Amino acid sequence: MPSKLKTLSQTMLAALNEEMRSVLQSSGAQPDPFYGMIHYHMGWVDEQLQPVQVYPGKQIRPLLCLLTCQAAGGDWRQALPAAAAIEILHNFSLVHDDIEDASPTRRGRQTVWQIWGIEQAINIGDAMFALAHLAMNRLIERGVPALVVVQALRRFDETCVHLTQGQYADMDFEQRDGVSVAEYMAMIEGKTAVLVSLAAELGARIAGAEETAVTHYAQFGLELGLAFQVKDDILGIWGDETLTGKSAATDITTKKKTLPVLYGLEHSVDLRQLYAQDLVDETFVTQVIEQLDACGARAFTENKASAYSEGSIDHLHAAQPGGDAGAALHELTNMLLQRNS
Amino acid sequence: MPSKLKTLSQTMLAALNEEMRSVLQSSGAQPDPFYGMIHYHMGWVDEQLQPVQVYPGKQIRPLLCLLTCQAAGGDWRQALPAAAAIEILHNFSLVHDDIEDASPTRRGRQTVWQIWGIEQAINIGDAMFALAHLAMNRLIERGVPALVVVQALRRFDETCVHLTQGQYADMDFEQRDGVSVAEYMAMIEGKTAVLVSLAAELGARIAGAEETAVTHYAQFGLELGLAFQVKDDILGIWGDETLTGKSAATDITTKKKTLPVLYGLEHSVDLRQLYAQDLVDETFVTQVIEQLDACGARAFTENKASAYSEGSIDHLHAAQPGGDAGAALHELTNMLLQRNS
Repeated sequence: MPSKLKTLSQTMLAALNEEMRSVLQSSGAQPDPFYGMIHYHMGWVDEQLQPVQVYPGKQIRPLLCLLTCQAAGGDWRQALPAAAAIEILHNFSLVHDDIEDASPTRRGRQTVWQIWGIEQAINIGDAMFALAHLAMNRLIERGVPALVVVQALRRFDETCVHLTQGQYADMDFEQRDGVSVAEYMAMIEGKTAVLVSLAAELGARIAGAEETAVTHYAQFGLELGLAFQVKDDILGIWGDETLTGKSAATDITTKKKTLPVLYGLEHSVDLRQLYAQDLVDETFVTQVIEQLDACGARAFTENKASAYSEGSIDHLHAAQPGGDAGAALHELTNMLLQRNS
Repeated sequence: MPSKLKTLSQTMLAALNEEMRSVLQSSGAQPDPFYGMIHYHMGWVDEQLQPVQVYPGKQIRPLLCLLTCQAAGGDWRQALPAAAAIEILHNFSLVHDDIEDASPTRRGRQTVWQIWGIEQAINIGDAMFALAHLAMNRLIERGVPALVVVQALRRFDETCVHLTQGQYADMDFEQRDGVSVAEYMAMIEGKTAVLVSLAAELGARIAGAEETAVTHYAQFGLELGLAFQVKDDILGIWGDETLTGKSAATDITTKKKTLPVLYGLEHSVDLRQLYAQDLVDETFVTQVIEQLDACGARAFTENKASAYSEGSIDHLHAAQPGGDAGAALHELTNMLLQRNS
């Protein structure tokens, strides 16, 4: 029996990409360097604005939105504007993040600011932010009631504010010591989890689901996003480099402030002393890993990941997703939670 | 008899600022450095986030929105969310423009990026962009019908895209020669006029005005914005420095590509030769002004300004604004069009 997820996601993502191209189209007939920069970032054209095919990423968020809408009793096609909006919003945030993090490449290609400069990259990000809203606005054309559209837009923008608060905290943490576990959890909630949560919530809202189901879907997405991010932190230290594609313990050699490290710094004097030293060599890595095990940081982080994973699955069950889309939603969730790369 | 404009604008701008403070309020009880940066830019706090009173600018756009709503038969209080959204949007664009133009100061204060760095300034601008949308969303709480809110949001975001296209063109023009008068007009339409137009249009839409009246108000705002900008170009060359506060002919000494200069470069070989030289001294200024007069650039620009001014007033008459707000709208328009500083 073919996977429900595979069958549905092929149809849904094809329609998603059509919707996005329609929103991000220049109104003029001539080739337009303004929209060209957007199309480059989306992976549709190269630096000379010639058509290319680039892997667009997993598009998990929009897929979640579409599957949730269908599983909550709606028609996934009605949610296409919201799914497109979420994916364009995510891409907008990458354009600005790349400037803020001074990242020269993304998915093996030069970033927008590297090619066209910081000034134009800020501005083209702003354009994409506005276009993400115009994508949302098309819900009305799909017959979604106006009041639901207004409510969906409010949740969309509340999430945008939350995303910028997460990004603020992330940048702030790099500048200072003494970041607490609680602060870190609030940061990853803003940076990652709220957008996953929004995807599921909007799918359910557009389906016209009861408020209880909407809340379960939103919480399912939130804990899924948190579980995913915490697992990322585990893989960054204990991941198998043949699977992750990154060198082992990369988050230790870069002294990245991830959850196990912050827990360790809160609970282990030895770890604090280790992190105070400048030298980062193999001994340092071995000693840090020993300390993280000894002070319970690894167990704490793995427990957190399990708790969010279970919470996510519990809320998904409670939401009672139906049909093939419901099955696909369970499949996608398990796939995301069982990641080892 | 006291000026209708003065009386109404005092009441309206007080309510506007209350509305903006309510939208831009942190939800937490503690002082919040994230919202602190926004409040700094709005002129509500100083660099240490202590309360200050700073002149907020003329707030022409929100005032236009509120006056139009009332003059078109609505209740201006219903338009407060849109007026606040437009003013916050304008302020967001200033935060990003200041980075893009590398401006260290604005209204005599350090710019946000100068104090907190480019990375945080990009992000806080993004937050303000999202908050401007949340301001708009409050229309629903004021009893504006949901379908009107969705339509207003669509026009809001179409205008945002247009603004970024104007900013794109402005930055692009600095990098190249041979900018045409037509390209320049399209640029100032995007950078300045569309937001003035939106202010009037939304006021009329929220009032529930007929589509014909809405179109007249939008066109009134558009031509008002264009007239204002073209007059700015005239003042930048022929303005009285005792009135403008800038040194005379400042746009010539900086070789800024404004409308009269672009017209001159299209029509005068002598001017093209002058602009090709590196030396910018008093003789250069005198010669450029002579050429601009000789080739008809001054007359062309003044005619443009007059045409837009008249067009603006014609559309305002056609829209038939009523009551004290209608009188105030005429007063404001005349004040803006008779500017000599």
